[in-house]
Amino acid sequence: MKYHVDGELVPAENATVSVEDRGFQYGDAAFETMRAYGGSIFEWSAHAERLAGSCETLGIDHGLSDAELRKRIRETLDANDLADAYVKLSISRGVQEGKLTPRPDADPTVVVIVKELPRGGVEGADVWDEPATVQTTKTRRIPDNALPAEAKTHNYLNGILARRELVEGADEALLRDAEGNVAEGAASNLFLVGEDGIHTPSLDGPVLPGITREVVIELADEAEIPVYTGSYAPDDVRNAEEAFLTNTTWELRPIESVDGIEIGGGPVTNLLSRLFDERVERRHYDGD
Amino acid sequence: MKYHVDGELVPAENATVSVEDRGFQYGDAAFETMRAYGGSIFEWSAHAERLAGSCETLGIDHGLSDAELRKRIRETLDANDLADAYVKLSISRGVQEGKLTPRPDADPTVVVIVKELPRGGVEGADVWDEPATVQTTKTRRIPDNALPAEAKTHNYLNGILARRELVEGADEALLRDAEGNVAEGAASNLFLVGEDGIHTPSLDGPVLPGITREVVIELADEAEIPVYTGSYAPDDVRNAEEAFLTNTTWELRPIESVDGIEIGGGPVTNLLSRLFDERVERRHYDGD
Repeated sequence: MKYHVDGELVPAENATVSVEDRGFQYGDAAFETMRAYGGSIFEWSAHAERLAGSCETLGIDHGLSDAELRKRIRETLDANDLADAYVKLSISRGVQEGKLTPRPDADPTVVVIVKELPRGGVEGADVWDEPATVQTTKTRRIPDNALPAEAKTHNYLNGILARRELVEGADEALLRDAEGNVAEGAASNLFLVGEDGIHTPSLDGPVLPGITREVVIELADEAEIPVYTGSYAPDDVRNAEEAFLTNTTWELRPIESVDGIEIGGGPVTNLLSRLFDERVERRHYDGD
Repeated sequence: MKYHVDGELVPAENATVSVEDRGFQYGDAAFETMRAYGGSIFEWSAHAERLAGSCETLGIDHGLSDAELRKRIRETLDANDLADAYVKLSISRGVQEGKLTPRPDADPTVVVIVKELPRGGVEGADVWDEPATVQTTKTRRIPDNALPAEAKTHNYLNGILARRELVEGADEALLRDAEGNVAEGAASNLFLVGEDGIHTPSLDGPVLPGITREVVIELADEAEIPVYTGSYAPDDVRNAEEAFLTNTTWELRPIESVDGIEIGGGPVTNLLSRLFDERVERRHYDGD
């Protein structure tokens, strides 16, 4: 494998950052996880926009255009001869003089990592083997006034501590906000299906504005399925007709159970999954 | 300079970690900042104990004895011919297969970074040039139920965002907890001096159990100055007779002002600073 580090393609085993890089020292970096289908990045504009927002929140002025970032991703995919892949683009503040207080004169470190994934679209295979087994954790989501959820950063211990709580067999943590309402998974957004439509925790809470979450909302709108955002208690999850998680890699993943209570996917989850696959097929593979 | 990385001394410019190291990817690492005075680490046992606690919270089983960690620090100081130094020891979970969920089979990355500091003790110079100018920030401390403050980790964006709020001239951020009580500085503990003794926010809140904080409490006890821990409002800080910050590098640093309101050091801060210097002198330089 070859990765892209600081403007150059290097063999994965030589892909390193300085131990003084603020990305290593403080997790002082923004990132996006993306998926390439048929050689191009799914929802690139949305990812580029969110990354710009994360960098703005952190005050990392990297000075690279979206086109330049996209070019580095393309070069990394090409160097590894990958068309269907997981892509992680990270921008750290780099090495700076001084300690905690960041300086404006940043020399950011830009890293692109890729891994092969199965083909997506209607003929594709899911990345996950089984529906998700979810567990509500004691670890709560970090409130927005401490670290805004809208910024996707390398400070991921909150999710790691939640995942560490999982009992054998569970594979995603469901984190609640400070008030006890469900917020999101450690690495996914949550959707509940009721008789009235689909529900997902509002971005007013400590919830990442997931790109897949947004696409699912668009697809539901197009299919005339009502979409509601709001605050939901753990009991609302347990009582849902269907439930599923979304993230870039998983796409839509049904929830088999939460805290041992069976929920499962169903017709609405299946419909939205099919619409998602069709969108990917249409945009990334048609005409291949 | 030479740093210690993964068991070897390497020139600082070659001191790197893999871009796939979880320390870089997620800030998934524990650390201690220490000070060497006259060639030996101040309060090594306390630092070693806190580091073990941080690793336990994160579930990083590095398998290295305290003696081995201390040996690596010693080797790094010797390789740079340093007796008085800043020392940062970091242990990341290293590179692992898979994504967010940590695996038990860790191959941790151990990094020692050192920088020269002035001599400490009674003849030493302070690391800081001026007393601290402090600003209360909108950014709040992360609650313990999201990320326990007792674990010292590479997830430092909370403090970085607070520092980024500082207006020109301010150099330390004062963070409040979710309830609005003062917790600590971005990289320091807070002490207030009243007519009845000294006060510091209790560890029941999201407050790092600072080693210097603990030493100051011991010194105050020995000097028969009453020590109180509790919850304090921002107004308590503004109304204090004296106030100071503590951390390993600064030792005790008087607070000149908070949010533009002058406070300053005074006789109690000066006494405790002198007792601190005497303790360092006695333990690290006597007999030189």
